[in-house]
Amino acid sequence: MKFVTAEDHHGVFVGIIGEETDSVLPLKRAEEAWKGESTLPETLQECIALEGFAGQASGILQWSLENAEELFVKDATLLAPIPRPAKNIFCVGKNYAEHAIEMGSKDDIPEHVMVFTKAPTTVIGPNETVLNHKNVTEQLDYEGELAVVIGKKGKGIKREEALDYIFGYTIINDVTARDLQSRHKQFFIGKSLDTSCPMGPWIVHSSVIENPNELKLETRINDEVRQSSNTKNFIFPIEEVISVLSEGMTLEPGDIIATGTPAGVGKGFKPPIFLKSGDKMEVTVEKIGKLVNYIEE
Amino acid sequence: MKFVTAEDHHGVFVGIIGEETDSVLPLKRAEEAWKGESTLPETLQECIALEGFAGQASGILQWSLENAEELFVKDATLLAPIPRPAKNIFCVGKNYAEHAIEMGSKDDIPEHVMVFTKAPTTVIGPNETVLNHKNVTEQLDYEGELAVVIGKKGKGIKREEALDYIFGYTIINDVTARDLQSRHKQFFIGKSLDTSCPMGPWIVHSSVIENPNELKLETRINDEVRQSSNTKNFIFPIEEVISVLSEGMTLEPGDIIATGTPAGVGKGFKPPIFLKSGDKMEVTVEKIGKLVNYIEE
Repeated sequence: MKFVTAEDHHGVFVGIIGEETDSVLPLKRAEEAWKGESTLPETLQECIALEGFAGQASGILQWSLENAEELFVKDATLLAPIPRPAKNIFCVGKNYAEHAIEMGSKDDIPEHVMVFTKAPTTVIGPNETVLNHKNVTEQLDYEGELAVVIGKKGKGIKREEALDYIFGYTIINDVTARDLQSRHKQFFIGKSLDTSCPMGPWIVHSSVIENPNELKLETRINDEVRQSSNTKNFIFPIEEVISVLSEGMTLEPGDIIATGTPAGVGKGFKPPIFLKSGDKMEVTVEKIGKLVNYIEE
Repeated sequence: MKFVTAEDHHGVFVGIIGEETDSVLPLKRAEEAWKGESTLPETLQECIALEGFAGQASGILQWSLENAEELFVKDATLLAPIPRPAKNIFCVGKNYAEHAIEMGSKDDIPEHVMVFTKAPTTVIGPNETVLNHKNVTEQLDYEGELAVVIGKKGKGIKREEALDYIFGYTIINDVTARDLQSRHKQFFIGKSLDTSCPMGPWIVHSSVIENPNELKLETRINDEVRQSSNTKNFIFPIEEVISVLSEGMTLEPGDIIATGTPAGVGKGFKPPIFLKSGDKMEVTVEKIGKLVNYIEE
């Protein structure tokens, strides 16, 4: 099941994409058609916080496929699945050894989970344009990543229970201004330029992903493969990231954790190849999909 | 003018404290009594985003002082002025040279503004208890700070216009787990334990503070003075912090920027003196007030 935030001429809605269709079912409208009314909230973030939401959505999808094909929207625009997160996006730094090495040396391979954040103002959706920020940075870079969306509140979450706290998975391109990242020491400023967090195209429900720690990941820039790895190369698997983060901090439904990027970022080439105006960026994660964005001309 | 979020037996409300009274005027209730209805939103964060809110509040206060003294609440509990920020709190790292030195050496004095964040789940109000987190850290430490609350949306804000973007000022105690801060490299994890951001007791409106870069700041632990400095010792004055942050990132009403802590934190003593269960922490900032909190027994 693929959950989306989408927009058509009626407005922004929470939707689901069927297995055998590319069109989007607006869940609230469909439940109203089915039952006369809908208790679903307006945002995907709020829906995720509802216990049993995935089951409820699945029921609405099933009924609609059988009874109301006309409800499916064929020309909806997909937005970021969570267009305005309720807090900064958590990002794991240097979670692939080869990327840590390309950013410095073997000494940069972390012994403990490293986490920084991106401001909610960075989020844009699939096919949207990342500002080139040419007055602010000369070193804009891409980072393709698998992202986890938390489904229920938790603190002190044990590794063996961590996957139960995940609602689903999406893709993030953690666009980074390398010059700002190094100038300001702590990563936040270089990671939080407006539009620097393309997200989507949807959230794939956790029930579909048996093992998130074994998914192929590929990033192409203008059709050239730059990053090609697999989440099995994580230094810290997702269970450990969730466990460490939640030791003293409560995780909440809708929290987004970007799990880190593999080797092959622009800064890692000799000489570095940074993004330029008009570049096309595609991040593909196995079983999730493909996130396409462009750099402003 | 002091703006608060407070609670009485009717519920949580946005209030203002008069110049000559310690009691709190619930703004929405007072406007309703005055005009029959109120257009004010329910949260201080939303109020701050309204153009002309401070003037509107001032009018309501004036009317109430003259006509409706019974509306003032004498036994309200003050909460954090913004109990649930819409994004992480921005924090400037090492913004006082003597603090940078006590944390390491002169080499730690930053050449550029350094910013990390604290999760919204860290926020608590005045007189509330900070969890001792004894299963997670052995090095809990205090950091008294002046905090800025942004009043209007802006990007590419010039230094000379930066103060116009400030709604007001409050106090933050940036409670930090030093062992986690150093273990996880990026500061976020050590800065984001639940309850580790006491805030308040109110937001003093910017019109009252002529120069935020010249305010005395003092932190006492169990009545012993530990930090005693002045914001004139900032390495990066508030105008520069706002200008650098907003170069490529949009600032929004209700954004909170903690401006950094001076020398005298527990880790700076030889040997270090970390917080322990039952400790009383008091942070006083000139013209703002005093923020008192306790460590869980």
